[in-house]
Amino acid sequence: MFLENIRSPEDIKKLNINELNILAKEMRTALINKASKVGGHLGSNLGVVELTIALHYVFDCPDDKIVWDVSHQTYCHKMLTGRVRAFLNEAEYNTVTGYTNPEESKYDLFSIGHTSTAIGLATGIAKERDLKNGKENVIAVVGDAALDGGQSFESLNFAGELGTGIIIVVNDNDMSIPENHGALRNNLNRLHYSSRNCKDNYFKVLGFSYKIIRDGHDLSKLVRTFKEVKNTKKPVVVHVCTVKGKGYKYAEEDKEKWHWAKPFDIKSGIYQSTIPKENYGSIIRDYLLEKITNDKDVVVIAASTPHCIGFNSNARKKAGKQFIDVGIAEQNAVTIATGIAKRGGKPIIATFASFWQRAYDQIEQEMCLNKIPVTMIITNASVYGQNDETHCGLYDIPLLGNIRNLMYLAPTNKEEYINMLEWSINQNKTPVAIRVPWTEVNHSDEDVEKDYSKEKYKITINGNKLAILALGSFYQLGQRIEKFVEEKTKIKPTLINPRYINDVDSETLELLKKNHKYIITLEDGLLSGGWGSRIAQFYSDSDIKVKC
Amino acid sequence: MFLENIRSPEDIKKLNINELNILAKEMRTALINKASKVGGHLGSNLGVVELTIALHYVFDCPDDKIVWDVSHQTYCHKMLTGRVRAFLNEAEYNTVTGYTNPEESKYDLFSIGHTSTAIGLATGIAKERDLKNGKENVIAVVGDAALDGGQSFESLNFAGELGTGIIIVVNDNDMSIPENHGALRNNLNRLHYSSRNCKDNYFKVLGFSYKIIRDGHDLSKLVRTFKEVKNTKKPVVVHVCTVKGKGYKYAEEDKEKWHWAKPFDIKSGIYQSTIPKENYGSIIRDYLLEKITNDKDVVVIAASTPHCIGFNSNARKKAGKQFIDVGIAEQNAVTIATGIAKRGGKPIIATFASFWQRAYDQIEQEMCLNKIPVTMIITNASVYGQNDETHCGLYDIPLLGNIRNLMYLAPTNKEEYINMLEWSINQNKTPVAIRVPWTEVNHSDEDVEKDYSKEKYKITINGNKLAILALGSFYQLGQRIEKFVEEKTKIKPTLINPRYINDVDSETLELLKKNHKYIITLEDGLLSGGWGSRIAQFYSDSDIKVKC
Repeated sequence: MFLENIRSPEDIKKLNINELNILAKEMRTALINKASKVGGHLGSNLGVVELTIALHYVFDCPDDKIVWDVSHQTYCHKMLTGRVRAFLNEAEYNTVTGYTNPEESKYDLFSIGHTSTAIGLATGIAKERDLKNGKENVIAVVGDAALDGGQSFESLNFAGELGTGIIIVVNDNDMSIPENHGALRNNLNRLHYSSRNCKDNYFKVLGFSYKIIRDGHDLSKLVRTFKEVKNTKKPVVVHVCTVKGKGYKYAEEDKEKWHWAKPFDIKSGIYQSTIPKENYGSIIRDYLLEKITNDKDVVVIAASTPHCIGFNSNARKKAGKQFIDVGIAEQNAVTIATGIAKRGGKPIIATFASFWQRAYDQIEQEMCLNKIPVTMIITNASVYGQNDETHCGLYDIPLLGNIRNLMYLAPTNKEEYINMLEWSINQNKTPVAIRVPWTEVNHSDEDVEKDYSKEKYKITINGNKLAILALGSFYQLGQRIEKFVEEKTKIKPTLINPRYINDVDSETLELLKKNHKYIITLEDGLLSGGWGSRIAQFYSDSDIKVKC
Repeated sequence: MFLENIRSPEDIKKLNINELNILAKEMRTALINKASKVGGHLGSNLGVVELTIALHYVFDCPDDKIVWDVSHQTYCHKMLTGRVRAFLNEAEYNTVTGYTNPEESKYDLFSIGHTSTAIGLATGIAKERDLKNGKENVIAVVGDAALDGGQSFESLNFAGELGTGIIIVVNDNDMSIPENHGALRNNLNRLHYSSRNCKDNYFKVLGFSYKIIRDGHDLSKLVRTFKEVKNTKKPVVVHVCTVKGKGYKYAEEDKEKWHWAKPFDIKSGIYQSTIPKENYGSIIRDYLLEKITNDKDVVVIAASTPHCIGFNSNARKKAGKQFIDVGIAEQNAVTIATGIAKRGGKPIIATFASFWQRAYDQIEQEMCLNKIPVTMIITNASVYGQNDETHCGLYDIPLLGNIRNLMYLAPTNKEEYINMLEWSINQNKTPVAIRVPWTEVNHSDEDVEKDYSKEKYKITINGNKLAILALGSFYQLGQRIEKFVEEKTKIKPTLINPRYINDVDSETLELLKKNHKYIITLEDGLLSGGWGSRIAQFYSDSDIKVKC
């Protein structure tokens, strides 16, 4: 048992290759055991066991600097840098986060959870090292899918011109969360499988030296190659071909499912929990698949997270040419959708709230300034259920909520969600974003409007003195508060489902002035710059008191 | 005289190559004449005269679709598509905007002013064309500098995999606004100057067929090549090497100066107006150059707009290795700065308000979530003086103003601006953004604070009943209003320079409650999601009335 005695990378430098291989086995067992209990990015981490060992064997951290892109694949790194008990001892499982975290360890440089930024960060470190005449190695570890993000290109383009010593380790497992996409993927495959030097090498185009390790689980080869590039004075790419899920049969067989595993039975590979049969993911998937069948103009666009609308591999196959996954390239997703809609198509893009911010400029400029009728689906717009601060859906309202020409809708239940979608897809006047409720599935007990062209709040309970304006996911909370107030006081409050985030419904708000004195706004999001602040602003020169 | 008779592209199809060459001359004369009177993107447009003629000669717009990236180089396109009088007749000069504009013409597809989006838009159009079994050509015209933007890579990567017919015309003049940057520039130069096929071709890496026109002013060659690629069923790049400023001596000699020309004397090439000697650009340039000399850790970073802080070629040369221009790649600018600061350097990034939105994700995640002390300079944060809706600095407050851990400062005069900069550069706790006043240069008549670590509004006039909170550029407006109110009424208002955009100074705002009833907030920006909305929110449950 080597693993339990690793206190720092110094400890692995004492081992020989055979012992390192045993260490790798122990690490895989620890990864599988922990994930089976608490879930996690199992497949990604199983793929980088040897890569991580070799990095810490050859380089000297924390003096040498490793920046892990996305950093969801750093469980092994954490094991080797003083945090092994968080993987061996069940009672300490939750003492580490799932990403690098400078507050946890001096071996972690940044809290990172979005993709494609590691090369830029590493190049900045290398630039400052040079200005200070430093000598350390600077290494960025990036996945092949992260190379699809434009930011990675920008940084390679810059680092290639800068020309200073920097090592980019490309962990190529030919996967994104689902299968990887893009022409670059083909280039990497040609580099991987062509026996001789392949013409047209992406990294050489951008000024990098290039080395390939075709078996990224061969520790001797990894160690040898890293030793060769150590202390390089030029930018170099080490292309390491790995197998996602390596060493756990089920994870190798279904790489997408095991990218992020839920707690499971190790022997059978069966997940212990199941998703509730009715959820907003499957609802929209079924709805969209039907639309796709009946309308050749409907195109569903994902940016590597098709699962946020339930588009598993079956659904993607069914959708055929009417489904696009652009890879981790949100900016392109938005312009592709804008182009499709301009030509008369009906594009629907879906991704997490916190990833939409990666394409803000394209949304504001190309899509909204031009009033192009794209439908955007914003999922996970909440802090609840997010497993890291980098994935919190906090900023969508300050961002999208203020863009001219964008209609940002907040449905409160399934029927409203579907009707809003249906309306949005069939209109051709305005871009529309829909904030998917981040709750269990609720149902409407009455008919729901079909036309959303007029920005009008919905008064669901007519009361007086106090009005509760409860947006989207927090509408049910508003219902509970309304009941509570009615039971505990003599006041019967008004309850409003505002539905529209961007513009205020001045008419309804004016009306409330007549027989209301207090307004409460509820929303699942930031107070600062939040939706409530525009209600407060509306009433700011009146006698109405607003509490956000 | 052919030009004055061009009513639509149909008219140029009747001309032969000799006549087209005469037309080109006439167009250059018109470009120079108009720019000499009203200014404009002269250099960019002089470079694409033949390219534009050839496109409209070979392709059949508006059935065929041309998407112009950035679209500041479409004066010639406008001349050939029914708008020639806006270039020949001085009285009609202002009947067209400086960018493509669908409201102006059916030949213009989008209102575009930011870079790198044309390939994505064109690919979306091509995708929808295929779903509808359309037959038209889809063409994106992009500059070499626009290829540095990550979005261009994302779109090439996608289009190369999609594999359908699309034509990317790369207008390569080896320039951005200043000189172009990046390893890709070297690749394009190798492709341009290597007599035989160059190994490692960027476009072939990404699945494109490739053709090069080494003299992009040779109409016969342009026409022949475009005819060859017309109706292609595959993605193809036509790499056209042009000379920015072609045909006007001064513009060829100093390409940076003539990218956007001010009114000038044609014969001498001398600008008729001069920049006021004291302006916020030269102030910060002189300040930063001195810092650079005295502190090896200071690094100034631009993203193709160094002129926004006065960094002309002299200043850039002086700054040496402590100046970086990453090209049109704002995302990379932010991560490079973040890496530099993490390693102990003192990076300062500067660009226009409306371009910062292109790197929102990196600002929020890598920089601010990690509390990395980068200094960001936000210029042109106003609608005033912007020559197009795509360049308005409207959204910076909703965007940057709500990011946790970011301190967003609004100086009101030169001394405050410099002191804020000095403080920001020398502290190492927090990322700081500074909203440069968008006014003539004002001076403080008293000592200005040196320490900005505590978020405290500054009460400059102590009054009662009414308080005027006048942010940044609008502080002088606040002074005028204060005087006006004092003169016209018996009220002596309080005047406040808030200085801090992100967090409210609750202490001062609480204090105002004592002897004030009304608050006015002034800011040069959007009301919706603006700074005033958080003041309104603060007082929303009190008796104070707020008018934003």
